[in-house]
Amino acid sequence: MKNPPSIISRAKYDFIDSSTIEKIESYHSKPILESQKIPLQDPYTLNGQKLRLNFIRQQLKTNVDYLAGDKIFDDNESLKGNIENYIGMSQIPTGIIGPLVINGSNAQGIFYVPMATTEGTLLASYSRGAKACRESGAITVITLQEGLQRTPTFKFKNLIDLGKFVSWVLEHKETFATITRESSNYAILNDVGINIEGNILIIKFEYTSGDASGQNMTTICTDKICKYIVANCPVEPVFWTIEGNTSGDKKATSLTKRVRGRKITAEITLLKEVVQSVLKTTPQLLYRQWRINVSGAVKCGSIGTGMHPANAIAALFIACGQDVACTGEASTAITRIEIDDNGDLYCAITMPNIIVGTVGGGTSFPTQKECLQLIDCYGPGKSGKLAEIAIALCLTGEISIMAAMSAGQFTAAHQKFGR
Amino acid sequence: MKNPPSIISRAKYDFIDSSTIEKIESYHSKPILESQKIPLQDPYTLNGQKLRLNFIRQQLKTNVDYLAGDKIFDDNESLKGNIENYIGMSQIPTGIIGPLVINGSNAQGIFYVPMATTEGTLLASYSRGAKACRESGAITVITLQEGLQRTPTFKFKNLIDLGKFVSWVLEHKETFATITRESSNYAILNDVGINIEGNILIIKFEYTSGDASGQNMTTICTDKICKYIVANCPVEPVFWTIEGNTSGDKKATSLTKRVRGRKITAEITLLKEVVQSVLKTTPQLLYRQWRINVSGAVKCGSIGTGMHPANAIAALFIACGQDVACTGEASTAITRIEIDDNGDLYCAITMPNIIVGTVGGGTSFPTQKECLQLIDCYGPGKSGKLAEIAIALCLTGEISIMAAMSAGQFTAAHQKFGR
Amino acid sequence: MKNPPSIISRAKYDFIDSSTIEKIESYHSKPILESQKIPLQDPYTLNGQKLRLNFIRQQLKTNVDYLAGDKIFDDNESLKGNIENYIGMSQIPTGIIGPLVINGSNAQGIFYVPMATTEGTLLASYSRGAKACRESGAITVITLQEGLQRTPTFKFKNLIDLGKFVSWVLEHKETFATITRESSNYAILNDVGINIEGNILIIKFEYTSGDASGQNMTTICTDKICKYIVANCPVEPVFWTIEGNTSGDKKATSLTKRVRGRKITAEITLLKEVVQSVLKTTPQLLYRQWRINVSGAVKCGSIGTGMHPANAIAALFIACGQDVACTGEASTAITRIEIDDNGDLYCAITMPNIIVGTVGGGTSFPTQKECLQLIDCYGPGKSGKLAEIAIALCLTGEISIMAAMSAGQFTAAHQKFGR
Amino acid sequence: MKNPPSIISRAKYDFIDSSTIEKIESYHSKPILESQKIPLQDPYTLNGQKLRLNFIRQQLKTNVDYLAGDKIFDDNESLKGNIENYIGMSQIPTGIIGPLVINGSNAQGIFYVPMATTEGTLLASYSRGAKACRESGAITVITLQEGLQRTPTFKFKNLIDLGKFVSWVLEHKETFATITRESSNYAILNDVGINIEGNILIIKFEYTSGDASGQNMTTICTDKICKYIVANCPVEPVFWTIEGNTSGDKKATSLTKRVRGRKITAEITLLKEVVQSVLKTTPQLLYRQWRINVSGAVKCGSIGTGMHPANAIAALFIACGQDVACTGEASTAITRIEIDDNGDLYCAITMPNIIVGTVGGGTSFPTQKECLQLIDCYGPGKSGKLAEIAIALCLTGEISIMAAMSAGQFTAAHQKFGR
Repeated sequence: MKNPPSIISRAKYDFIDSSTIEKIESYHSKPILESQKIPLQDPYTLNGQKLRLNFIRQQLKTNVDYLAGDKIFDDNESLKGNIENYIGMSQIPTGIIGPLVINGSNAQGIFYVPMATTEGTLLASYSRGAKACRESGAITVITLQEGLQRTPTFKFKNLIDLGKFVSWVLEHKETFATITRESSNYAILNDVGINIEGNILIIKFEYTSGDASGQNMTTICTDKICKYIVANCPVEPVFWTIEGNTSGDKKATSLTKRVRGRKITAEITLLKEVVQSVLKTTPQLLYRQWRINVSGAVKCGSIGTGMHPANAIAALFIACGQDVACTGEASTAITRIEIDDNGDLYCAITMPNIIVGTVGGGTSFPTQKECLQLIDCYGPGKSGKLAEIAIALCLTGEISIMAAMSAGQFTAAHQKFGR
Repeated sequence: MKNPPSIISRAKYDFIDSSTIEKIESYHSKPILESQKIPLQDPYTLNGQKLRLNFIRQQLKTNVDYLAGDKIFDDNESLKGNIENYIGMSQIPTGIIGPLVINGSNAQGIFYVPMATTEGTLLASYSRGAKACRESGAITVITLQEGLQRTPTFKFKNLIDLGKFVSWVLEHKETFATITRESSNYAILNDVGINIEGNILIIKFEYTSGDASGQNMTTICTDKICKYIVANCPVEPVFWTIEGNTSGDKKATSLTKRVRGRKITAEITLLKEVVQSVLKTTPQLLYRQWRINVSGAVKCGSIGTGMHPANAIAALFIACGQDVACTGEASTAITRIEIDDNGDLYCAITMPNIIVGTVGGGTSFPTQKECLQLIDCYGPGKSGKLAEIAIALCLTGEISIMAAMSAGQFTAAHQKFGR
Repeated sequence: MKNPPSIISRAKYDFIDSSTIEKIESYHSKPILESQKIPLQDPYTLNGQKLRLNFIRQQLKTNVDYLAGDKIFDDNESLKGNIENYIGMSQIPTGIIGPLVINGSNAQGIFYVPMATTEGTLLASYSRGAKACRESGAITVITLQEGLQRTPTFKFKNLIDLGKFVSWVLEHKETFATITRESSNYAILNDVGINIEGNILIIKFEYTSGDASGQNMTTICTDKICKYIVANCPVEPVFWTIEGNTSGDKKATSLTKRVRGRKITAEITLLKEVVQSVLKTTPQLLYRQWRINVSGAVKCGSIGTGMHPANAIAALFIACGQDVACTGEASTAITRIEIDDNGDLYCAITMPNIIVGTVGGGTSFPTQKECLQLIDCYGPGKSGKLAEIAIALCLTGEISIMAAMSAGQFTAAHQKFGR
Repeated sequence: MKNPPSIISRAKYDFIDSSTIEKIESYHSKPILESQKIPLQDPYTLNGQKLRLNFIRQQLKTNVDYLAGDKIFDDNESLKGNIENYIGMSQIPTGIIGPLVINGSNAQGIFYVPMATTEGTLLASYSRGAKACRESGAITVITLQEGLQRTPTFKFKNLIDLGKFVSWVLEHKETFATITRESSNYAILNDVGINIEGNILIIKFEYTSGDASGQNMTTICTDKICKYIVANCPVEPVFWTIEGNTSGDKKATSLTKRVRGRKITAEITLLKEVVQSVLKTTPQLLYRQWRINVSGAVKCGSIGTGMHPANAIAALFIACGQDVACTGEASTAITRIEIDDNGDLYCAITMPNIIVGTVGGGTSFPTQKECLQLIDCYGPGKSGKLAEIAIALCLTGEISIMAAMSAGQFTAAHQKFGR
């Protein structure tokens, strides 16, 4: 997982390579056996919980002792680097949905996905979406781009100074790549972008960050690069800062900005029989709901056309030790539905800012580690898989909520499961 | 807290009444005593945790047994309405910051605010912001508007049918208010808005929802109203749905949309001495950082000019049983800084979508209840207070991060506290 | 056309009244006679031009002497109020398209619409769109809202001062209505909106402006109101300005802002035979093009989903003496297409910012007056009609360009007609 | 001006080369002589007009016979490619402002800029802005990027097909460059960008277009490329179109989209004495107005922070035969103001979409040609200059309007000059 030699010339646009196509074409999902279904009995008793925990232990062969409450966290030393002024552990109810069948460029197979939430109906709805998908085949998922930015910003006396500074900077790209390599074992500098507005210069340093979500790593590398620049460039800025608020960190920003973390797309064609048997609606009604939705998204000035990917993102991020403050940016999505020539329902979602990590951050805390292990996403080499599970989960949620709304079941479901 | 008679004619714009002005003018913050400071010793040992838990128990006289791990959740019955497919509890490290001194229209006094996160530096940074604020006085906070929407959408054969339908609907506003009263003890229908685009009609039903965050309550009322309309109106839509994706639920949408939950504004003038002693920067540098930030926000197409209110919102929402999937919408903010005639630093933040509840949702779970009680925000009559604490917390974070960036401490802090 | 008594309580949302429905239901378009068709012979000769001028003189009984070059402008006195540093007249090639058949709340009948442009293909394309529409019936057009804003902005020492100021302002609404009446014979003050962000207060004064486009009129009234406020309110702002850049003047702004000038919607159902015979495509292909377009609009961050309404707006505005600098705001549109149960094509466009006038501004200059008279839109009582003709024109253009693109004719047409 | 060998590897970001810096550093503006000032006497008489026409003929040595009305257009043959259904010439009052002193990468020297408008006050205001700028030095203008896009869009059965298609496309970039060279003497293909969303593929073909504005040229080249792809690629799309509505043609789109036409930045530092003597305000007041404006722009969801660049763009485009329908996109701007250490006023504007041409389109019509010649911008090799004059003009307008508003003169000016 350590970084290869740096080459500042990677794909700056979406890309699908031929080995990905082959991998996806050669996958065939098997039917789900009865033994692979999550036991749903006794939803609100200790016994029901135990049934599901046993299912996990036996079916998935992973530990859930901390989630189950059998072990209690007391390793306060491990808090270093993750929190200050610690008083204890907030506890969020957590369940699993699935199996979710994914045929992805990184995630391939069946997954039981943990979600932490206090919103009733949520897991029921995602479970239903996952069922509709797996009864129609597998969700195809392809990662299109990867990149994380810091955007330090420099201000000059005037455009002349700025112009000289930019020229110097662009001649030192390779030095910045070297500084990056020396500062981090994982970060790779892939792009150095220039954005000029009057006497303000924004330099976009774009990295990949191995299997960490990467915000700290890229900050540290960028800081070193900036300090090198300021110390060595003959032209002096009148002010500079490590971040000029254009990186999109912790907030939704323009769709045209391209990528933050990973840009991924996912699709499935739902069989019309399944739309009726599982989702209790028709392709036509679901399609009508989507058309209303996309038109609504335009009217209210939302970024993208997603309905509620934030529910999946927040619940998955809490369970799996991800940065929950990234919910806004990570849930940016374009959701799309069409009826194909067979009368089946083509459903797709594309998300440009799926920012996750499987090392560092909150991934090593007890329940977080257990949740990551549930989906085989703990540790090095797994972040691409986690990101693809995240988008597949979002797609099931988009399908299920629109199905419910199209058929008038939405309110009834919330009256049944919610409070 | 039960609903008063419904009047569909409330303020549709921001408003500050004179009693609020009086309340705020008459408040005088007292100096913080040594005994009121959070013990920060032994940050990463069981002993340090215990010191802080004792401080809470003695200073704040509230229970923290579940947070401390002294009691274990086993009341699975209580999960009904909050989660399905339950397997256990995800545990998120939680700390407190403060005291945060607030002079608000709903929250007035000093507060120790719980935050659940795995991002190192976060609580240290918010603590520093809170300190800079309290050494400069109190954060003024005023709630400007309140309202929660459902936006059912109807499609017609053509504009003629739509026009007849709209006329009928507008003649039945009082009936809708009555249906609302009969459907909920808390919801009040305050506005019925019409948005027409070709043969698509969006009706915005806007409510207040007592002390619940209100998404379910308003869905149920709106569903009943819509069913009444469809059953009684002589003109039939060709399709309708409870939500046409314009309410802004679970996503950031246009700032001009006005309010979702509560629109609140907060301000403080930081003394220049405090900027230097606590924030280790100067008013001039901090102001320069903000100018860069606002200009960056415009350039990257973000909604508003906030830097990272999502950090405060996510950490507070996890700790306090709020809907974390609302992080995107709730963290929408306009952050602003100026230097006043004395050379002090005027700092303000305005947030239109602070959506919180102190009853229902996840508020009654053990650690959530304990966290809410820490800030005296558990139960009826407290949601306005919780919302104002949330924005004050966001303001301290905006100040602290910009201070760090302006003085080049940001990266160093993350290297010290983060991983 | 003079102003009625002022009532600050008009519809703040879209509205269709029953008399509008009746008017539109009772209209029946007659077939277009051969004699009503524009002579298209000799497109690029003096003779062809003469044929078309004669058609106008005989069919429409209006003067076109200045357009024809038979009379030359020399009334320099009349330039006062419209331009400084005058050197002469820029001349823009102008043609007519039509007949355009409209069944609107203000415009009803057939119209030959003047367009001034140097872009080849444009009039040919709009002509084709108009033909497809009239062979399918009439374009239904309904005006939904009217209003023009100035948004003076006030800054205060702090929120306390701002709050006292707002209270005072809201108590003096009726005085502002009186000042408006005294300052203008046409302006009516319909709404006073409050928007607070920290110590900044934006007051939105919303007017109707009779048949003038109204920017000057509303500026003058608002200035008088502001001066009254500042002279009389006991609380003093530290700074104030007549416009804080939120009115949307001369630029596209968020769709959720509601209305600027007039918000109008238009629809037509194109018969599938006509789609094939006139537009040389199929409903299915045209619908596919639109789906791609709306998805493209979302991806590139455009405001609304229009394709090129700006072409119609700019060409009509130049010809008719409107404010061409408003092209950006006025061409904001939501374009929508669907296939109905008969396989016909439902097409709609909704435009919130159609800002036009038929008195004042550039309407009285010689060719501008002639162009306005061509569509019976010169002088008092005609602005509502002009606005509805504008949107109907835009709709024909949206249809025609998408038809061309869907069938691969777009480039060929530009190669034939363009340079 | 013919195209050099095509290299698909140009700067994809802003750039300032060292020869530009040298050119700008070596320029020194001379004081404006009395004889260089536009005669302003007799504003609304034939005599005054004649004085100004003589000034142009003698000072600038260019023809203005058509503008003056001394010659009448009758070359109907020349209309081919520019308009259909021609009936005559719309006439727009036109004046000149200046001298405008520019120190640019393409435009260097003093310019008298023609503007066609019927909005009183406009030329007076731009004149004042130009005066304030020239009394403070020259406006520095630097072109940062150039590019024009067509964004054909392809839809596939599924992601697998799309992936194979993309691979094929990316292997044929050089072929596309060859097709471009064969299809146009001027177009150069500089970039081929890929954007994937589910089964929809948008390919961005980005060109430079010599001195034409280039919309037609790039359409024709892209059409040929697409037809080549569809004829030769083994994978077939289910639908494709020459434009998927993401190129930003005729509408304002996200600032992050980078460039359309030319991205240019301009700056000037206004001396504080000049702010007072010419603009009748103070640096402090003007700066306060700007802060209010930028904050207002954010609040109303406008793209960028410009106040009214559309006024300059529309008036210049009408006079100079540009595509007026591009007013929305071309006037997108970031306007910024700051007070520097001397108390002088730094003013900058950055505009990413200045789309102009000096050959083709409407540039050869009589008055258009005269207006272009007024600023030495007619014919090959001049489009870069015209674009820089456009932005400099916009900057003077931003300064003047904000000055007026900051000092409360705005309304009075409109009462004096407007109607």
